[in-house]
Amino acid sequence: MEVKAGEFLEQINYPADLKKFSEADLVRICNELRQFIVDTVSVNGGHFGSSLGVVELTVALHYVLNTPYDQLVWDVGHQAYGHKILTGRRHSFHTNRIYKGISGFPKRSESEYDTFGVGHSSTSISAALGMAVASQYKGETDRQHVAVIGDGAMTGGMAFEALNHGGIENSNILVILNDNCMSIDPNVGALKEYLTDITTSKSYNRFRDDISYVLTKISDLGPNAHEMVKKVEKTIKGGLLKRSNFFEALKFRYFGPIDGHDVKHLVKVLNDLKDIPGPKLLHCVTVKGKGYALAEKDQTKWHSPGLFDKITGEIKKTNSDKPLAPKYQDVFGNTIVELAEQNKKIMGVTPAMPSGSSLNIMMKAMPDRAFDVGIAEQHAVTFSAGLATQGMVPFCNIYSTFMQRAYDQVVHDVAIQKLNVVFCLDRAGFAGSDGPTHHGAYDLAYMRCIPNMIVSAPMNEEELRNLMFTAQQENMGPFSIRYPRGNGVMVDWRRPMKAIEVGKARMICDGEDVAILSIGHIGNEAVKACLELNSEGIHPAHYDMRFAKPLDETVLHQVFSKFKNVITVEDGCIQGGMGSAVIEFMADNNYSANVIRLGIPDKVVEHGEQPELWAECGYDSKGIVKSVEKLAVSRTTKSIAS
Amino acid sequence: MEVKAGEFLEQINYPADLKKFSEADLVRICNELRQFIVDTVSVNGGHFGSSLGVVELTVALHYVLNTPYDQLVWDVGHQAYGHKILTGRRHSFHTNRIYKGISGFPKRSESEYDTFGVGHSSTSISAALGMAVASQYKGETDRQHVAVIGDGAMTGGMAFEALNHGGIENSNILVILNDNCMSIDPNVGALKEYLTDITTSKSYNRFRDDISYVLTKISDLGPNAHEMVKKVEKTIKGGLLKRSNFFEALKFRYFGPIDGHDVKHLVKVLNDLKDIPGPKLLHCVTVKGKGYALAEKDQTKWHSPGLFDKITGEIKKTNSDKPLAPKYQDVFGNTIVELAEQNKKIMGVTPAMPSGSSLNIMMKAMPDRAFDVGIAEQHAVTFSAGLATQGMVPFCNIYSTFMQRAYDQVVHDVAIQKLNVVFCLDRAGFAGSDGPTHHGAYDLAYMRCIPNMIVSAPMNEEELRNLMFTAQQENMGPFSIRYPRGNGVMVDWRRPMKAIEVGKARMICDGEDVAILSIGHIGNEAVKACLELNSEGIHPAHYDMRFAKPLDETVLHQVFSKFKNVITVEDGCIQGGMGSAVIEFMADNNYSANVIRLGIPDKVVEHGEQPELWAECGYDSKGIVKSVEKLAVSRTTKSIAS
Repeated sequence: MEVKAGEFLEQINYPADLKKFSEADLVRICNELRQFIVDTVSVNGGHFGSSLGVVELTVALHYVLNTPYDQLVWDVGHQAYGHKILTGRRHSFHTNRIYKGISGFPKRSESEYDTFGVGHSSTSISAALGMAVASQYKGETDRQHVAVIGDGAMTGGMAFEALNHGGIENSNILVILNDNCMSIDPNVGALKEYLTDITTSKSYNRFRDDISYVLTKISDLGPNAHEMVKKVEKTIKGGLLKRSNFFEALKFRYFGPIDGHDVKHLVKVLNDLKDIPGPKLLHCVTVKGKGYALAEKDQTKWHSPGLFDKITGEIKKTNSDKPLAPKYQDVFGNTIVELAEQNKKIMGVTPAMPSGSSLNIMMKAMPDRAFDVGIAEQHAVTFSAGLATQGMVPFCNIYSTFMQRAYDQVVHDVAIQKLNVVFCLDRAGFAGSDGPTHHGAYDLAYMRCIPNMIVSAPMNEEELRNLMFTAQQENMGPFSIRYPRGNGVMVDWRRPMKAIEVGKARMICDGEDVAILSIGHIGNEAVKACLELNSEGIHPAHYDMRFAKPLDETVLHQVFSKFKNVITVEDGCIQGGMGSAVIEFMADNNYSANVIRLGIPDKVVEHGEQPELWAECGYDSKGIVKSVEKLAVSRTTKSIAS
Repeated sequence: MEVKAGEFLEQINYPADLKKFSEADLVRICNELRQFIVDTVSVNGGHFGSSLGVVELTVALHYVLNTPYDQLVWDVGHQAYGHKILTGRRHSFHTNRIYKGISGFPKRSESEYDTFGVGHSSTSISAALGMAVASQYKGETDRQHVAVIGDGAMTGGMAFEALNHGGIENSNILVILNDNCMSIDPNVGALKEYLTDITTSKSYNRFRDDISYVLTKISDLGPNAHEMVKKVEKTIKGGLLKRSNFFEALKFRYFGPIDGHDVKHLVKVLNDLKDIPGPKLLHCVTVKGKGYALAEKDQTKWHSPGLFDKITGEIKKTNSDKPLAPKYQDVFGNTIVELAEQNKKIMGVTPAMPSGSSLNIMMKAMPDRAFDVGIAEQHAVTFSAGLATQGMVPFCNIYSTFMQRAYDQVVHDVAIQKLNVVFCLDRAGFAGSDGPTHHGAYDLAYMRCIPNMIVSAPMNEEELRNLMFTAQQENMGPFSIRYPRGNGVMVDWRRPMKAIEVGKARMICDGEDVAILSIGHIGNEAVKACLELNSEGIHPAHYDMRFAKPLDETVLHQVFSKFKNVITVEDGCIQGGMGSAVIEFMADNNYSANVIRLGIPDKVVEHGEQPELWAECGYDSKGIVKSVEKLAVSRTTKSIAS
């Protein structure tokens, strides 16, 4: 539902319109922009706190810069709603994150103002540096290149890599550090403490005041003293202060900290910085959720609250009538605590997703055994490997899509050494409205080719618990468990756990005509499909493979001996995935059968609700029914013909 | 060939033996250890300069620490030869990097002193932190955990991620920064300049001297001044100096810089540091190649020089009689310059491998268009993506094994946005004597599942040139080209380039009985196999697929229509690789055939020369012959039986 914009904002479709207003009007424009975000997100959903926190920065940037010629890269992109609204998408903003609507993140194909597609953290400095170096090469010396990056994203290693390189390139890049002390959860780590220290002047600014005061006093002692004091001042200003800053050490000129909610001051500072060449960093202090009291107060909850009543702040529940099956996340979070109470070797590791992964339950219950290591997937995996060398059993919980960041560490530090690290790959399969940057599409394929790696996925909550129980046993080696975003299927899920034989499939139902081999939660769509097919008189067999590696070869021999029609179903890419493993088995064992592999096709699938995307790709229950019918009919046709 | 150790070294098999010597003896032990490394590496080969640079550090660490209870992690591990010699492997050291011999890197299965397997850069702090946190949890408060990391490796993002986390854990970790200004090539980046600045006292140390001098002078002015000077000193010491250091900003206590070749001083400092709890960093300045003049002078050349005459320093050439085909690396390095002269949009990017990849040729010829970005694969890829958004055509050259580090960036920043970035994956397939950490085993599998990605591999130099020519054309999108370490097969390789139709295979020879489908350089083994088979009266067809994605479906339809026996050959993992793509095609199109997929099996393959490893895995020419014979014979048997 499109909401109405305020009087000024109504007149702004593009930054050129914004520039027609006077500086004095900017405060009101910020208020209207903020209100528009509140009005829209409260009824349509989406990320919330991040964009509220950068309203002034967004307005100031588009007021000062000559976008899109000047290039603006938003890190992650949760905070880019204001940017979207000011750059041609006010009227489509109510379709944000909705199937076929605009993306929740900046996206090159959506607007020339979106210079770089984002979603994952910490890419903005690298991308903006590439743009800046290209401009330099082309002689476009007037062009500005700005990366806006949060203090959370700054903890990701590639941001540091980019600073290290950017500091020695003489190209025109401005990094704006949007310091709000938050990732989705509160930001953690030494850098965060350092930034807080600067901002709160605990030592940095006070030093300047103190020393200046004392030196003035000394200076009063007479002309000799005065001369010498000048010398001290010169040394301090010329040498130490310049070097006394983390970013200055990396050869970025450091400016700030400044108040990121003072739009007029921001305009002034940004105008000044345009004339300073080379790499520079502006430290802006902002409040996530700024302007919406509840969001300022509980920033994690209001990162992406769902629909809410904007007046009362009451968050609207969906389907609150019937008792819902729990989220897989919560099953993980509760089960790891249950297991850790029994097995003292278990530890938990998350890279900045305590609430998203529900590891926060363990962090609260066992603070010495559960770690948020910051937005740092690479470190999270190798840190877990280090723990495992000492006999610990770390559960390293990383979203499937973010595990791509730590692929080398999985291979090099865990798999080759066959260490007991359990990888819980959350948000595996279609991520839903976050879209293509967040789909956990590739993990079955990229994990399956790694030696020593066990690759599994539970079909429901009980299976997740059993797989977790299985994985924490002695000498299991690298063990990955993938599960999707969202709810499972069992209201009564807290059942006693038991070990599963590694590589053992489950028969869901026996049948004839066609065998369906599914892996993971999507198997529930196959169950629905079977029910529908049964009513048509078609009775497929259905196996929950549970493991993409090792495969249950006993079951597969039975299947290929009995069935000439096989359908594999996975919520993951078709190339190289579980279905691919099944046909590798088929070929290696000289079976032949008609095999349809259902899963994510070899293309970039956009955002939408999971069921919408499963349907689009033909592997929701209806898609499975169709595939079965196709095979069953072709079988029937053949048998009639023969 | 085992060489003789000096008199003292002869007595040292383990650190316990080392500890029996007096501190005064350590200098001689260092000399003998250094000589032993020179004597052995000169006749057996291996990495050279790195280990010479840390002889004193190695001796001091094992003298002071209680290894293996105290835990020592070597980053990368090129420098760990001295460590190996002092920890039980002096007598096997001459088998270093040789097939079935000891590994060139620390390796957990080889020795309890090797706490963590390494090979790739920047993992040591994460691993040591994991160990330290585990010790803390177990209450082993006396246990030391030390990571030795070079200034090159410190530019890798995950090292920063680990510091950011380590700074807030109160665990007992010492990071030793081995600052020699080198990666394999000279280290680059802002951090390197910062460290040089500290070390050469350009400002940091001079500040202390200056200010101390001036304050003394002021202090002389009288008791009032004296008091105030004290106050200034306190402010400086308590506040600014403490914070004026990059590592202190990350909450690591910083010590140094100290001379890393003064073994006695190192012993003293390390002993002192043992008593200081919490995270700390010792900055050691060393010289790569220390003690061997030529290696000190040309550090890149002597990183891994091959066999040499230790007296004259003459590097021994292998097979110098006949004119050799060039290295693929050099074909890349020369060809990119040739292409870039014609296409002004081409740029070159390498993460710290200018000489290894031969991009140094372009860096010399076109310094404004070729970039060494430091050990920073993630940044290298996204920086390339940034360049591509501006119409540039970056060739991002990363070893196959290191591309694992940038997997997410390939997916998220390049493939999803369909940007024109050309990935040149060097050292694809078996890496040889570097072993499992360096084998480029997985790239065909992990690239093939990514949408929009073209996945190719040349069979020879001319093909590499043609693929590079093809990839740099307008709007090709993401394009990967993999090629192996070492020499090609064409002495006369500088032929005019031409475009290849994307997804088009080449027929090498037509035949009957069996079709061999190979991809990449390993196809030359198939050529040899065919020659041998022809002499036995077996005439296989052989196709060079060139592309694992998109597949040449026309050729595959022909192949599966004509042949009931197919062998796929690739120098890469069997799970999910090119052979897997071929049987996916077979299954999707309802063909049936006996398919043998040759390639790297699903296990960790150790080090050895490439031909040794191909033979071990059954896909050298002999292995291919055997597989063909098996299929051809089974065909004959069947036809006789029928």
